[in-house]
Amino acid sequence: MQDVSGDVITPWEVKATSDSGVNYEQLIHRFGCSPLTSELVERFEKVIEKPAHHLIRRGIFFAHRDLDHILNKYTSGQPFFLYTGRGPSSSALHVGHLIPFIITKWIQDTFKVPLVIQLTDDEKFLWKNIPMEEVMHLALENAKDIIAVGFDPARTFIFNNLTYMGQCPEFYQTVCRIQRLVTYNQVRGIFGFNDMDCIGKISFPAIQAAPSFTTSFPHIFSHHKNFKNISCLIPCAIDQDPYFRMTRDVAPRLGLPKPSLLLSSFFPALQGNKTKMSASDSNSAIFLTDTPKQIKTKINKYAFSGGGATVEEHRANGGNCDVDVSYQYLRFFLEDDVQLEKIRTEYTSGELLTGNLKKVLISLLTELVTEHQRRRAVITDEMLRQFMTPRKLDF
Amino acid sequence: MQDVSGDVITPWEVKATSDSGVNYEQLIHRFGCSPLTSELVERFEKVIEKPAHHLIRRGIFFAHRDLDHILNKYTSGQPFFLYTGRGPSSSALHVGHLIPFIITKWIQDTFKVPLVIQLTDDEKFLWKNIPMEEVMHLALENAKDIIAVGFDPARTFIFNNLTYMGQCPEFYQTVCRIQRLVTYNQVRGIFGFNDMDCIGKISFPAIQAAPSFTTSFPHIFSHHKNFKNISCLIPCAIDQDPYFRMTRDVAPRLGLPKPSLLLSSFFPALQGNKTKMSASDSNSAIFLTDTPKQIKTKINKYAFSGGGATVEEHRANGGNCDVDVSYQYLRFFLEDDVQLEKIRTEYTSGELLTGNLKKVLISLLTELVTEHQRRRAVITDEMLRQFMTPRKLDF
Repeated sequence: MQDVSGDVITPWEVKATSDSGVNYEQLIHRFGCSPLTSELVERFEKVIEKPAHHLIRRGIFFAHRDLDHILNKYTSGQPFFLYTGRGPSSSALHVGHLIPFIITKWIQDTFKVPLVIQLTDDEKFLWKNIPMEEVMHLALENAKDIIAVGFDPARTFIFNNLTYMGQCPEFYQTVCRIQRLVTYNQVRGIFGFNDMDCIGKISFPAIQAAPSFTTSFPHIFSHHKNFKNISCLIPCAIDQDPYFRMTRDVAPRLGLPKPSLLLSSFFPALQGNKTKMSASDSNSAIFLTDTPKQIKTKINKYAFSGGGATVEEHRANGGNCDVDVSYQYLRFFLEDDVQLEKIRTEYTSGELLTGNLKKVLISLLTELVTEHQRRRAVITDEMLRQFMTPRKLDF
Repeated sequence: MQDVSGDVITPWEVKATSDSGVNYEQLIHRFGCSPLTSELVERFEKVIEKPAHHLIRRGIFFAHRDLDHILNKYTSGQPFFLYTGRGPSSSALHVGHLIPFIITKWIQDTFKVPLVIQLTDDEKFLWKNIPMEEVMHLALENAKDIIAVGFDPARTFIFNNLTYMGQCPEFYQTVCRIQRLVTYNQVRGIFGFNDMDCIGKISFPAIQAAPSFTTSFPHIFSHHKNFKNISCLIPCAIDQDPYFRMTRDVAPRLGLPKPSLLLSSFFPALQGNKTKMSASDSNSAIFLTDTPKQIKTKINKYAFSGGGATVEEHRANGGNCDVDVSYQYLRFFLEDDVQLEKIRTEYTSGELLTGNLKKVLISLLTELVTEHQRRRAVITDEMLRQFMTPRKLDF
């Protein structure tokens, strides 16, 4: 699971050796996905007739698999659908969790396509020491946060596995078809499982794979002619790529299209680029439930600075944006390209001090989190039920 | 998977080294179950206030796990339920397949208890090269044969996994709870899986285990107070014991009662005791769809004889009932103890010739099969639907 750079990247662990973070070039090479080139981004923008989202323009989504196939299909008038997800191990999402949902919402709004969102409560039950009732409750809490991102209710189906498996025989049937085509040897190689792992973990990858195929959602797709040809695009962080490498491997043997992937880099922990933000370490994360005071305190106290040790030193040598967590966060969330570039040059030159950089970030994240809380507060159980009911979706 | 006797007994293979068949004493020792002693049969008869079924009296059901617990609970007024099943790999059942269903029906009629019957179409899909639509169809066809055995519709729920998994979230939830407690190492040890087996096979044992627990059937049990304390009794052939050894191992960690087992010896192939009757070898089996002529031909042609090579030899030395397949079949199906004993002594002495012994068997099986066909012919799709609908059952 470790590459020549020494980085460890699995769906359960992200650990980089360098202060500047994961060696993504190495990772692309090891995983066998493709870099998202400026040519492909240009083609993408030509298709959608507007600029790409800043998360794409800035290379935060930096790699892909067969994104060009999705564009080809789309331009020839064939529909696709979106699939993303989350493992509900904590009730509070942190700001990093928003990234795949933000880009997914933007793609949904841009292309007007259906979206399925899998909450892997079964995975969290198998991996973590959390009672089943609790993971199922967390799934519903998380679903409300996801809905608050602003997904189109006519085009979005959210489901938790421990419920949906018992609602739709075709989901288990698709899982079973996948499970027949993947050996223990393969999942050991891909995920690093060992003989002491429980059989639930060993067969779980098929459950994360299944929503890549329209056959898992007859209520959404089966009325559509040639519904088995509808392709899937999965926006996610690159640590999830192993699941879909496996999925793409079995797809042709199922007679179904390989899912395409749009892969992001990790959202760094407050402490720096060496690992990703994690909800299980509350000092590493800004939660969507944090108060303005907590946000301010955590950023001021923990956000790793690329600035000089003293004001004098900073003025003399400037700051290092590559390792500065506050600057990294602005890359994710500050939409204004001009303002971001200004901050980068002024911080790099030493003109802008760490304290002032953090002030910009605090203000931005406070607004983002407060706004999220406001939107989430009005999500009713009835809206939740609506999003989570298996049903037809608009194309 | 092989014991000191050299016999190979797994859920997928039965191969004995001796002409007299599997060394069951050895098998009890290896599997760690208990012999069904005459004392326990006597106690059983005292509880039910009638003689035990001939399949029990004759030692065809010869081993058990915690059958005494079920009797203790029953006599103290606590209910239990029955669970048995079948892997639907062929549309035609053979007469050997009836054995667990015959004893299960008799126990159901005797104790007036609910019964769940699992059709493991997913297992057959994973193990055999049969399309999914076909295994699901076979499951329904098999269900009609099972209903024809005469189960009480008010007390019997029949389900196929590829459908029921998508009808009842609690079933998958129970499966998932089991999958968390069983490691790859364990299933490799119990079932002989290897690293090249697909992950579906590796996690399947949890799916066969789950119906041992009332939590898999909320529609049947959840209205009952203390429904999690209701014990399960599983009548099956002893090759299924490994599944339930595993199940009994996890039960205490789930806070649920261990299932009890009533275990039968194998129904021999026409060719002899070395292996069990198999639907995949049509010359080894009498099918429930066979015509009287086919039955007559197959028994006369293939049923391994323990008689002398010539009439003279037979008259002189007598026949060997232990290896004579026709006599073995009569032990399973001829209910009249006096007649069976007469046949045994006369065949052993040489008075009764093989041809005449076979004539008795042909007549018996022809009647049994014809009667089954008559009953099966009137099973409607509506009756099938009724048995397979998740619902409350009578206690």
